[in-house]
Amino acid sequence: MLSPKIVKHLNQLQYKKYRREYSEFVIEGIKGVAEAFASKSDVLLLIVEGSQREEKEIIDLIVQAESRSIPVEFCGRKDIGNIKTTDTFPGVMAVVEYTDNTIDDITAGHVVCLHDIKDPGNLGTIIRTADWFGISTVLLSENSVDVYNPKVVRSTMGSIFHVQVIRSHSIFTDLSRLRDDRAYQLVALDIAGTSLPTSFSASASTVFVFGSESHGLPRDLDSLIHTRYTIPGKGQAESLNVAISAGILMSRLS
Amino acid sequence: MLSPKIVKHLNQLQYKKYRREYSEFVIEGIKGVAEAFASKSDVLLLIVEGSQREEKEIIDLIVQAESRSIPVEFCGRKDIGNIKTTDTFPGVMAVVEYTDNTIDDITAGHVVCLHDIKDPGNLGTIIRTADWFGISTVLLSENSVDVYNPKVVRSTMGSIFHVQVIRSHSIFTDLSRLRDDRAYQLVALDIAGTSLPTSFSASASTVFVFGSESHGLPRDLDSLIHTRYTIPGKGQAESLNVAISAGILMSRLS
Repeated sequence: MLSPKIVKHLNQLQYKKYRREYSEFVIEGIKGVAEAFASKSDVLLLIVEGSQREEKEIIDLIVQAESRSIPVEFCGRKDIGNIKTTDTFPGVMAVVEYTDNTIDDITAGHVVCLHDIKDPGNLGTIIRTADWFGISTVLLSENSVDVYNPKVVRSTMGSIFHVQVIRSHSIFTDLSRLRDDRAYQLVALDIAGTSLPTSFSASASTVFVFGSESHGLPRDLDSLIHTRYTIPGKGQAESLNVAISAGILMSRLS
Repeated sequence: MLSPKIVKHLNQLQYKKYRREYSEFVIEGIKGVAEAFASKSDVLLLIVEGSQREEKEIIDLIVQAESRSIPVEFCGRKDIGNIKTTDTFPGVMAVVEYTDNTIDDITAGHVVCLHDIKDPGNLGTIIRTADWFGISTVLLSENSVDVYNPKVVRSTMGSIFHVQVIRSHSIFTDLSRLRDDRAYQLVALDIAGTSLPTSFSASASTVFVFGSESHGLPRDLDSLIHTRYTIPGKGQAESLNVAISAGILMSRLS
């Protein structure tokens, strides 16, 4: 049985307000929790479904937690109804502390910048795809969905621990500084650009900027862009999904 | 006010069982409904939120419905709570009839085949992406999510009316027939394949086969494949999301 205090805390972490207040988020599932342990993040609490405590992979996680003096709590069926963030509880979850980074923490490598991305699945998928292609940083505008939203965390499939995600307080200021103070090239996908090459190289100091699902890039950001590409289509669809566009671009970077 | 009979029917169409029984599905939003009118599908009923009946785009839809003798129903705030499939009702929805196609209806062009795809957003996004790249047919295995599920329909962004989607009763039989009777080439994305070329051409008679999000391709289908490609990565992610893989492959077809 979990204490009412822990149940309340886990419920609070489903809301952005409390995640910000505590600088904590929840990760679910064996793979996600294992990635948390393997990362530089601080794991604060491990929660295991009592009936699964004899599973080999779960035992491994418990042993890891104990070796680092991380508290382990066991929960019963009744608790699960109160703490789960999905229809099915995957047997294990952890509370993880996060630290906020700024653009000053970008030391090297390409940056994928998302302006006002709203769909949690799209954001999670883009972080996972960035990880696949070895892109180290994702920069989010101030009105994007929270990266520690449980749906985002889940759809990153653990990649949230491999990619540095920066939540900007002013994306215009941050992109301007990267461009003017640090000589970054700003490349955008846009319907008015030239055809995206099937394979292309870009300086390590490049930000790839993607507009929102519904509104594209606002004019103030548009004025900062050096190069525009488009992904040519030949069907009747009006546009590509932003995660698909980002995936195609990342896959062509050589 | 909608009649209880219509409210009941709209609610039934949220379930696959009834969609199959009636061969009908629901499409929401101005763009989706306009695409339905522009398509060869039969629109059976138009439902408009009463407070929006003076909006120009809504009036256009009403005029189109009336010119084709399609019944138009107006609904109030109270109805919306009973019929909406999302948090926000987009002001307009339509009931559309669908016809079931089989592989005998494939006349030309590339086919994207999805084995046991479960995530509605992934399926909708793949249909939208296929439309963008001019791929005419998507073939679904028998245990895939229903293409007329409201979440799938929504995430196609209208492309459900531009791409022929075939729901197979036996994907093994259908792929075998395409391969052996119609000389189709079967190409799969797979972790064991050769590196996907940055640009490649494929005969019009090609099926691109994608495994499920969690299980890849089953062995029986695996034995039918002629060519295997892989999308090389260099980060720590275990895999790419299936919609991203499909999008990257489609974008490289020249």
